[in-house]
Amino acid sequence: MDELASKGVSGLLDPIAPGIAPGSDAANLSILGYDPYDACKGRGFFEAAGAGIELKPSDVAFRCNFATVNEDFIIVDERAGRIREGALELAEALQDIRLRENSDIEIIFKQTLDFKGVLVLRGDQISSNVAAEMPKAGYKAGSFRPLDASVEAERTSNALDEFFKISHELLKDHPVNKKRTSEGKPPANAVIPWGAGKLPRIELFYEKYKLKAACIAAVSLIKGIAKLSGISVIDVPGATGYIDTDTLAKADAALRAIKTHDLVFLHVEGPDEASHEGNIEGKISIIEKIDSMVGRIIDNVDLDEVSVVLLADHVTSIRHRKHTGDPVPITIASTEVIRDGVQRYNEREACRGGLGRIQGRHVMPLMLNLMCRPESLSG
Amino acid sequence: MDELASKGVSGLLDPIAPGIAPGSDAANLSILGYDPYDACKGRGFFEAAGAGIELKPSDVAFRCNFATVNEDFIIVDERAGRIREGALELAEALQDIRLRENSDIEIIFKQTLDFKGVLVLRGDQISSNVAAEMPKAGYKAGSFRPLDASVEAERTSNALDEFFKISHELLKDHPVNKKRTSEGKPPANAVIPWGAGKLPRIELFYEKYKLKAACIAAVSLIKGIAKLSGISVIDVPGATGYIDTDTLAKADAALRAIKTHDLVFLHVEGPDEASHEGNIEGKISIIEKIDSMVGRIIDNVDLDEVSVVLLADHVTSIRHRKHTGDPVPITIASTEVIRDGVQRYNEREACRGGLGRIQGRHVMPLMLNLMCRPESLSG
Repeated sequence: MDELASKGVSGLLDPIAPGIAPGSDAANLSILGYDPYDACKGRGFFEAAGAGIELKPSDVAFRCNFATVNEDFIIVDERAGRIREGALELAEALQDIRLRENSDIEIIFKQTLDFKGVLVLRGDQISSNVAAEMPKAGYKAGSFRPLDASVEAERTSNALDEFFKISHELLKDHPVNKKRTSEGKPPANAVIPWGAGKLPRIELFYEKYKLKAACIAAVSLIKGIAKLSGISVIDVPGATGYIDTDTLAKADAALRAIKTHDLVFLHVEGPDEASHEGNIEGKISIIEKIDSMVGRIIDNVDLDEVSVVLLADHVTSIRHRKHTGDPVPITIASTEVIRDGVQRYNEREACRGGLGRIQGRHVMPLMLNLMCRPESLSG
Repeated sequence: MDELASKGVSGLLDPIAPGIAPGSDAANLSILGYDPYDACKGRGFFEAAGAGIELKPSDVAFRCNFATVNEDFIIVDERAGRIREGALELAEALQDIRLRENSDIEIIFKQTLDFKGVLVLRGDQISSNVAAEMPKAGYKAGSFRPLDASVEAERTSNALDEFFKISHELLKDHPVNKKRTSEGKPPANAVIPWGAGKLPRIELFYEKYKLKAACIAAVSLIKGIAKLSGISVIDVPGATGYIDTDTLAKADAALRAIKTHDLVFLHVEGPDEASHEGNIEGKISIIEKIDSMVGRIIDNVDLDEVSVVLLADHVTSIRHRKHTGDPVPITIASTEVIRDGVQRYNEREACRGGLGRIQGRHVMPLMLNLMCRPESLSG
């Protein structure tokens, strides 16, 4: 990464604006040039699209967590010990859920990565205007409520409550959880939906920029942003969305993809996950793996031909275990840029870089300019 | 101030945007997170509120200057030699003014600090849409005129003209002025209203940020911005709004206030006043006093617990004796920020700082982020 900085121009990037802490949806949409205040009306729909569910425009979709709750529905672990093994079996137990009260609302649930999943509600008279908060240990699970006085919001809120409670009934005594409990692991005894979303209005990336783009990402949110903006999603074996991901496999996939695309968007989730967990060793290890990934890329591209842009989508503070509004370093490496003498990729050096302090919405215009096809403005 | 810079992250701040010269109202509103184009519709109302006048929503209010005019109403000194002693007596002479032509418009006049005062017009059919310019030596005083064709603007313009002329009649031979003349001082022989304002629409600061804030300021404009945004105003004995102010008393008041508030906004007017006067020694002396004030503050807070932000609300050029559109240095000192190696608080060093170049509207989001309660954007 330091080599990349020494071959480029650096700066500090506010994904949205100074001080604003973005969700991953807002941050990545902003970096791809979409107005995050307009495009991110609920991440659930992006998540479900990224999970490969064929969605209807009337669907309401949610991100879900397998979680551990106690008998009072208080969340004990919002990631159920980051369950991986057995998660698919648990998801299978949820495939035939029919709601009792809201039996006309169809339920589609899919596990995606580890403790993560998506829920789609399909039917008439449903709404995304419901409170369904990201689960957090210590808080009560399933505190869904309508955000307006409509029948649709009321029904949807009730449907979520039903889904959550049925998931608990079906999972609490599941053999996978009995085994987890016997091993001293937190059982994944409930599924908690959050991040209600409906079909976002998002201009196709190709229409917007006339660039053929590909996306390499493990997590459904990023894949979904790509799918809904018409960016090709490339699945990479070994990409896990966690600190154990195969960053070199991702680098190799990107190197192949750039031969047939104008732009490749490569996303690594691991540092965010490690930071949310307060796992400093894990964070260091995944950053080292990203360092190797960047090395693999710059060793195999000609910076005369290909620009390499390195940035973080947002800060996740390992101290606070959540996203903050701090800026991230960005480096744009290319033989086309005026190198600024910055030799290292970090916040302290980046603030002396030639890019100054820019915002997420500036990234795509800078890319287009590097490609000799800048947006132009003239009367 | 240099110590503060060395313990923080610095940058250059455009109070509004690059090149825009703000009035003090626009600058301070912007820094507090209000859209200055929306919130500052005439400073008079802020001034009157800050002067402690109980205002009605239909009132039209003005900032006023005691000034020295000649017999042709040409302004000789727009601050009447910065009158202090006797100003209150002169104001008393104006307490029972009744307009002759517009006798249904009630007149409320209050002297605030030195040559400064406020005027409130109260009644039906009045308007803030009148030209009433900040007085300047060499120009004709009392050149009021309506800015639209309404009866209200016409009446208000006439009322201002009447008020100005009556003030001249009542003040020109006042004993205070006779004494001033005999001492070779310019007489405060007229009151010139300017900065027409009506009730601004301004969201309460607490509603906007959920922060309990206090304001320490001498000048009515800043106090009025605080009052109208629901920020507690703390009066400090010895705070004069001029270069002779007691900055250490202000520091001590701020140190007490921060124990019971989330945010303390401390404003020192002196450098602006000295600059408007072209008084370089005065400007240096008040900057030295601010230096001591900052020293008192950082010696008595724990930067683990309290962030200290130092900025100027705008540049007042001592050469041009007016506000300019240049950026000001800003330093945010806290153990939470990534220190950028900047060791001094000045423009030359600040432009190398980690904040880069930011705008007034970014200050509050940066503060909220430092308080671990950033504005967040997520679907």
